[in-house]
Amino acid sequence: MAVMPTTVIVGGVAAGMSAATRLRRLDEQREIIVLERGPEVSFANCGLPYHLGGVIPERSSLVLQNPRALGARFRLDVRVHSAVTAIDRAARTVVVSGPDGEYALGYDELVLAMGAEAIRPAIPGAERAHVLRDLVDLDGIMAALDAGPRTAVVLGAGAIGVEVAENLVRRGLRVAVVQRDRQILPGLDPEMAWPLAERLIENGVDLLLGVVATAIDADEVVLATGERIPAELVIAGVGVRPDSALAREAGLELGPSGAIVVDAQQRSSDPAIYAIGDVAEKRDAVLGIGRPVALAGPANRHGRLVADVIAGRAPAARPSVATAIVDVFGMAGAATGTTEKQLVAAGRAHRVIHTHPSQHVGYYPGASPLALKLLVDPETDAILGAQAVGVAGADKRIDVIATAMSAGVTASGLADLELAYSPQYGSAKDPVNMLGYIAENLRDGLDRTLQWHELDAAIAAGATILDVRARGQLAEGSIPGATWIPVEQLRERAAELDGPIVLHCRVGQGAHTAARLLAGLGKDVRNLDGGYLTWRAGTAARAALEREVEPALEPEPVA
Amino acid sequence: MAVMPTTVIVGGVAAGMSAATRLRRLDEQREIIVLERGPEVSFANCGLPYHLGGVIPERSSLVLQNPRALGARFRLDVRVHSAVTAIDRAARTVVVSGPDGEYALGYDELVLAMGAEAIRPAIPGAERAHVLRDLVDLDGIMAALDAGPRTAVVLGAGAIGVEVAENLVRRGLRVAVVQRDRQILPGLDPEMAWPLAERLIENGVDLLLGVVATAIDADEVVLATGERIPAELVIAGVGVRPDSALAREAGLELGPSGAIVVDAQQRSSDPAIYAIGDVAEKRDAVLGIGRPVALAGPANRHGRLVADVIAGRAPAARPSVATAIVDVFGMAGAATGTTEKQLVAAGRAHRVIHTHPSQHVGYYPGASPLALKLLVDPETDAILGAQAVGVAGADKRIDVIATAMSAGVTASGLADLELAYSPQYGSAKDPVNMLGYIAENLRDGLDRTLQWHELDAAIAAGATILDVRARGQLAEGSIPGATWIPVEQLRERAAELDGPIVLHCRVGQGAHTAARLLAGLGKDVRNLDGGYLTWRAGTAARAALEREVEPALEPEPVA
Repeated sequence: MAVMPTTVIVGGVAAGMSAATRLRRLDEQREIIVLERGPEVSFANCGLPYHLGGVIPERSSLVLQNPRALGARFRLDVRVHSAVTAIDRAARTVVVSGPDGEYALGYDELVLAMGAEAIRPAIPGAERAHVLRDLVDLDGIMAALDAGPRTAVVLGAGAIGVEVAENLVRRGLRVAVVQRDRQILPGLDPEMAWPLAERLIENGVDLLLGVVATAIDADEVVLATGERIPAELVIAGVGVRPDSALAREAGLELGPSGAIVVDAQQRSSDPAIYAIGDVAEKRDAVLGIGRPVALAGPANRHGRLVADVIAGRAPAARPSVATAIVDVFGMAGAATGTTEKQLVAAGRAHRVIHTHPSQHVGYYPGASPLALKLLVDPETDAILGAQAVGVAGADKRIDVIATAMSAGVTASGLADLELAYSPQYGSAKDPVNMLGYIAENLRDGLDRTLQWHELDAAIAAGATILDVRARGQLAEGSIPGATWIPVEQLRERAAELDGPIVLHCRVGQGAHTAARLLAGLGKDVRNLDGGYLTWRAGTAARAALEREVEPALEPEPVA
Repeated sequence: MAVMPTTVIVGGVAAGMSAATRLRRLDEQREIIVLERGPEVSFANCGLPYHLGGVIPERSSLVLQNPRALGARFRLDVRVHSAVTAIDRAARTVVVSGPDGEYALGYDELVLAMGAEAIRPAIPGAERAHVLRDLVDLDGIMAALDAGPRTAVVLGAGAIGVEVAENLVRRGLRVAVVQRDRQILPGLDPEMAWPLAERLIENGVDLLLGVVATAIDADEVVLATGERIPAELVIAGVGVRPDSALAREAGLELGPSGAIVVDAQQRSSDPAIYAIGDVAEKRDAVLGIGRPVALAGPANRHGRLVADVIAGRAPAARPSVATAIVDVFGMAGAATGTTEKQLVAAGRAHRVIHTHPSQHVGYYPGASPLALKLLVDPETDAILGAQAVGVAGADKRIDVIATAMSAGVTASGLADLELAYSPQYGSAKDPVNMLGYIAENLRDGLDRTLQWHELDAAIAAGATILDVRARGQLAEGSIPGATWIPVEQLRERAAELDGPIVLHCRVGQGAHTAARLLAGLGKDVRNLDGGYLTWRAGTAARAALEREVEPALEPEPVA
């Protein structure tokens, strides 16, 4: 009897299990063995924080599959409590430490899908901090919550940190979030993250930005400032890193951040070993570099892809735009592609567009504002990235832009997209179309803009700040020193204006009309991009940035 | 003093006003005159039905602009109550019938944006039927509602018809909808429209499909069957046609359905005359033909485009995928590109995919089902069209697919889209990705499917219908004659199966796993596309289609 080829998969969650089930669908005969270190496979990673707050009341609904069912449905040999401790690449075997001891297992193809591990802060008392990456972590936090703590500190304000904070508030705890960075959600630019920070604060979270924790005491977290924050419960969400020790020890090539380097077929530097999911590098679609991207979508996609490769098909992974979204008390922050921060760091030329349309027509009940940001290559008009924040419709706009971006639609080309419109769902000129119109006007020189953070320099250089909002909009606040002339009076009062002018309205649209008008009358005008709303968010975010803080200590992972 | 060029725009709503305002932003000097036959410009066409039901309580919120404000802001010469009665193309003048009598007006460029007019049924008593195209119509219906009617008949179940029906129900009337076609919403295929028809029925609408009204009496509508339906109020939403009489009389070229033929710069057969919006043809992106598309999005877009052309810029209109959406008591039906009906009528080869994923992960509260349909070119894998129905997330998926389609992403390429995922907003494998996976499997021959309407023929040819659902799913109902073997028992019971097999699960996914398994064991299998849910919707829709009805009378427009 012929010996069937054997595929061994290390890690049985998103990437690993996608690979296993697809491979079975492609090959009914092959041996497929899935080794999972933990007690459970195929659990709903992204749902974990919501069990803390009772949004997902049943723990069992987070467990999507079990080894027995996977065996029956897909004829998979799923072994839990089974850690791989070493790879012998020459012999094509792995050493497995299982419930009944250690044994060697041969493979024809080895798929590494160990995921990422939570970074623990390297400060005294850190052993008291929980992390939240799997069901074991979740059970530990639920047990701690059963003891009835009233206060919690969350270290870190990335996606996991804010989701955990929200759910602890929902559970009735007094929650502080301590964030070393001077903004929350580093996947967004600071002025875009600001409304979400406000959302946390409005919901009772004590948000400490630009603050470093130096120790965890019995019931407090100690800050570098000396301040002590009550913390009967401490949860660390300071980041993750690829769980690649096994690969490192086996001599596989790793990237600078420890993720396994792979080719477009997810092959590592050893052609019999593949890597997928959070442990593997993804190629960035904009920057062209390999980097770790800890997202469920690419993990599932690459799991499926590696099965195709092993089954003899020839797919190739596409570079990633790393679309992501996080919900903060019902307000979404979503992004795709690169941020302005990343482009600045990479020295890449870029054009920035902000706007604040409603998610659907204003005359239909329930209209709510979106903050949108688009990053554009000024040479090619290519979309480099986008961000959206709002209580409704942010996910849709980022999905549309992510689709356009990966398909090579230009920024101006967003104007031509035909998007579904009825009053409940959008506008005849959808917010995405509006971004395209603005991009086209900038590309064609029909508008010149100034960013919120460039305004002070323009004022110092003698520009007049001209507020063209309607009277009813002034109650929202004003930019200090601005002169107010509504658009409707501009033609008759244009003679009052001399020298360079920076125009602004509420969101940028009325100011565009005004700028065209004044340019048509020969004036030197620029439009404050995103209007008063972007300026206000940016200024508030910068105020947080410029707060005097102790020098930041780099939190080091515990060995 | 130089005489400024003059642009005359006929029609002051979506397309016309977009052209006027953009043209002013491009040219501060030009004379721009907007002639509107009605009393108001820039009203919210798509919001009209929602004022009937009080969803939009204030009529004033439907009026987005007025001539005075447009004059102040954009220096537009907006003339209401001003109908153009003739065009003298040689003299480049139009005859205007205004509040103060008739006069001639010269133009350098003439832009026709008269829109579409509602078709009135050509039956006795039709003068009692209201239509709903503008604020004057709205005021007429609101006045009729003030009289306190208790019963209404809506003739026609297109978008306007169902929106009006919903809003009359909301207002407390007993409402019947009489639809000549044997499905509602002709922009969808029948099995996709069916859940929306059920939604109407569940909300108390008496829906009469495949039924023709022959007369409108004092307080009843008479049907061809002889039946009489109480109807103190009658509203006709049987369709619209381009309001192109003026163009016809001027000798401009019209298409077969009466829309003005235009080039990619929206020029009519007279290069000094442009046409935009519902009165002009759009080029269909899939079928390549010109046809009227009465949608606000393209109207606004082409309005802006014509301004660019007149200002000396050189944009070109893209062919239209005609993305549209309608809401029926909180359930959306959305579509882009062509329908299966259109492809069949055009004799165009196509592959059909149905699936029924949740709009977000099932473990997060609030998951609700989507019905998705994708139409694919079997030769090129190009997307030909898509439809989505559901109470949440349908708009997003159609927008993503419309974007992908117009950017040339293939059906299989939908699998690679990186869409925003967190438990509130989607799945790691988004419903759009799932369509891509199915398309890829079909393209690569990894799956063979059968459509719901092909099942009877397969049974007649001797196929075994094999239901592989889990036991808990059987309570939804079953396909008559099906054998039930859940996926988990298939390997051991495969020997029981002989001859051709048509497999089905609930939505198609489990059946794909089962089909791969059985194909791997050498069986001749096909997967019932979209599973039990598509079969059930299609069968219910067909039952309506096959109901014995009187021969349909073609409703002719009143002269």
